[in-house]
Amino acid sequence: MVLDPQGAAVKNSLKALGYEDVSQVRVGKYIELTIEAPGREDASARVDEMSRRLLSNPVIEDFSYTLEEAGV
Amino acid sequence: MVLDPQGAAVKNSLKALGYEDVSQVRVGKYIELTIEAPGREDASARVDEMSRRLLSNPVIEDFSYTLEEAGV
Repeated sequence: MVLDPQGAAVKNSLKALGYEDVSQVRVGKYIELTIEAPGREDASARVDEMSRRLLSNPVIEDFSYTLEEAGV
Repeated sequence: MVLDPQGAAVKNSLKALGYEDVSQVRVGKYIELTIEAPGREDASARVDEMSRRLLSNPVIEDFSYTLEEAGV
């Protein structure tokens, strides 16, 4: 995130509640996807593509993801 | 999350882009805190308390967190 007004607001609120030991707050989105894929590499490629095309705004956000195999 | 209209909206958008293999989408908040603490247990207790008091809405959200030691 290049600018994070929400993070700054949360930091101020925490300070007002007495949490002075918090020096930085960044607020972003968390997205959990359940996806059907033949394997990890395929799932990874799909998630990467969806993240770039729709889920993130590449101008002002970066993204990362982890894969977890769902119980079958 | 008990209801997640944003997740449903994202799922529909992904479907419209051809990502039919996504069966579930949940959208939530991601918050990164930099906090000064004498140790892991102390940091954990602080984060837990902040999460319950301010960062989450306990009626409609749950939360989880992980700790990472920052480079000193």
